[in-house]
Amino acid sequence: MAAIDGDGKIFCRQMQPTPQADKPNEIVRALIDGARECEREVARLGGRIAAGAIAVPGTVDVDEGVVVRAPNVPSLNGFHLAASLENEVKWPLVLENDANAAAVGEHWRGAGQGHNSLICVTLGTGVGGGIILDGKLWRGADGSAGEIGHIGIEPFAEVPCNCGSHGCLEVYASATAIVRMTREAKPRFPNSILQNIEGLTSKTIYEAGIQGDQLALEVFRQMGMYLGVGLASLITALNPEIIVLGGGLANGWELFENRMHQQIMERVFPREARMVKIVRAQCGDDAGLLGAGWLAFAG
Amino acid sequence: MAAIDGDGKIFCRQMQPTPQADKPNEIVRALIDGARECEREVARLGGRIAAGAIAVPGTVDVDEGVVVRAPNVPSLNGFHLAASLENEVKWPLVLENDANAAAVGEHWRGAGQGHNSLICVTLGTGVGGGIILDGKLWRGADGSAGEIGHIGIEPFAEVPCNCGSHGCLEVYASATAIVRMTREAKPRFPNSILQNIEGLTSKTIYEAGIQGDQLALEVFRQMGMYLGVGLASLITALNPEIIVLGGGLANGWELFENRMHQQIMERVFPREARMVKIVRAQCGDDAGLLGAGWLAFAG
Repeated sequence: MAAIDGDGKIFCRQMQPTPQADKPNEIVRALIDGARECEREVARLGGRIAAGAIAVPGTVDVDEGVVVRAPNVPSLNGFHLAASLENEVKWPLVLENDANAAAVGEHWRGAGQGHNSLICVTLGTGVGGGIILDGKLWRGADGSAGEIGHIGIEPFAEVPCNCGSHGCLEVYASATAIVRMTREAKPRFPNSILQNIEGLTSKTIYEAGIQGDQLALEVFRQMGMYLGVGLASLITALNPEIIVLGGGLANGWELFENRMHQQIMERVFPREARMVKIVRAQCGDDAGLLGAGWLAFAG
Repeated sequence: MAAIDGDGKIFCRQMQPTPQADKPNEIVRALIDGARECEREVARLGGRIAAGAIAVPGTVDVDEGVVVRAPNVPSLNGFHLAASLENEVKWPLVLENDANAAAVGEHWRGAGQGHNSLICVTLGTGVGGGIILDGKLWRGADGSAGEIGHIGIEPFAEVPCNCGSHGCLEVYASATAIVRMTREAKPRFPNSILQNIEGLTSKTIYEAGIQGDQLALEVFRQMGMYLGVGLASLITALNPEIIVLGGGLANGWELFENRMHQQIMERVFPREARMVKIVRAQCGDDAGLLGAGWLAFAG
């Protein structure tokens, strides 16, 4: 949580783990406590809070202020989160999907500034997405647009996805996927320094790749290939000015970018492939906060 | 070519084959002749032509009035079509991609009326697409958005596409694809009535399917499956209110719709899969004409 001013300056940044419980009360409590702390800090600086926004890891009904579906925080499913906070904090609140908020943040203060159309892909534990067209967030008919992690990349492969489908981008281009693909490829790389590491993470795999480990390099090349296939379809369908890649796994950029670009050049019409910019995000973990801030101001 | 009034009523409809030549002169000549005939007819009815629009089978630069790339009419590549006609006809002219124009036509006078977001997929010799978001045609950063025929459906399959890529929707869900898939599947269906037909077309294959021919039925089921995979990715990314399927091959609806819906239900989040409408186009071959008419009025 943070307080953000109209220029995107961040005050009173707070962080805490999401309370895990069957009911949303504890989450609401934690949000209210954080909001009160922001109010006090902003008052101390001589300002006041005008509005709030919450970036939710799931689908939201923006008009109703309801969390429709939050796979990793199921206590919020169907919950009127905006109303239950507004009762306490007395300023208007909007909800938004976290990947959508990150797209807005990168568009406002990050790598997407000045671009009319942008696709922001967040490569984290999963793969999220946000689409900005004509300068505005495209939410879709019921708020679920931009679920780029769940477009089909290898639709007839058996690799299951948390969404219930299989062969989605998320199972090939997330941090989780990097770990899975490393485990799968291990037998082919007996000399890899990753053979003896317990509890593999995408970070250890990345670091092995930087040191030249062939297993790690191969897995990041695979990931880049699949990501390139997905981006190629998005470019073909939407012809955006710029694609912004954020999330922790985007730090592996130098290990996946060649294959990613190669797939795009191979699949997209040459003119469009040349014109689209593909860049790394600039706001880091603040993208979602900044986007939420912008959305709060926009009302 | 036709003259169209502000309610979408069509006058003076004309049709002729596209002149094939190395240079665009003959096409320009044919268009001017048709325009003159429309002018005469409209004048006879007591009206006048206010503006014109041309639906081009290719990518256009709308602002410059230039045909960027028209794979099936290569003489137009890079040609300033709008300007060369405006010199003669004296009314303003806009260019638009034909599948985009069809989407606008279905939105204005067809199956998409009253919907805020629409994806129109034209299943013809190839597969075209047009995307309407927030009530407006989404052209993309340089006019090539909506090339839905070239999103990757089975990206690692070898089936080559005219676009230079492979495994695109077009190679599985076009009339051309129906014929190719029938040829490929023939050996598995020795008793098919299609075994002895020379010069197979998607229409003869459809008719065989209606009569219960197992080869034809299998090919349309395959086509429906691939189409469903592609639509699932589009729904996931864009969350549109409605998808409109037009073009000649959409007439095979009853032979492919089950598999198409099955893939969508299997791959899309349940709420979004239930909410999206998938319907047949209503304007037939007039969709592009009507869309061009609307675009001419919109200027």
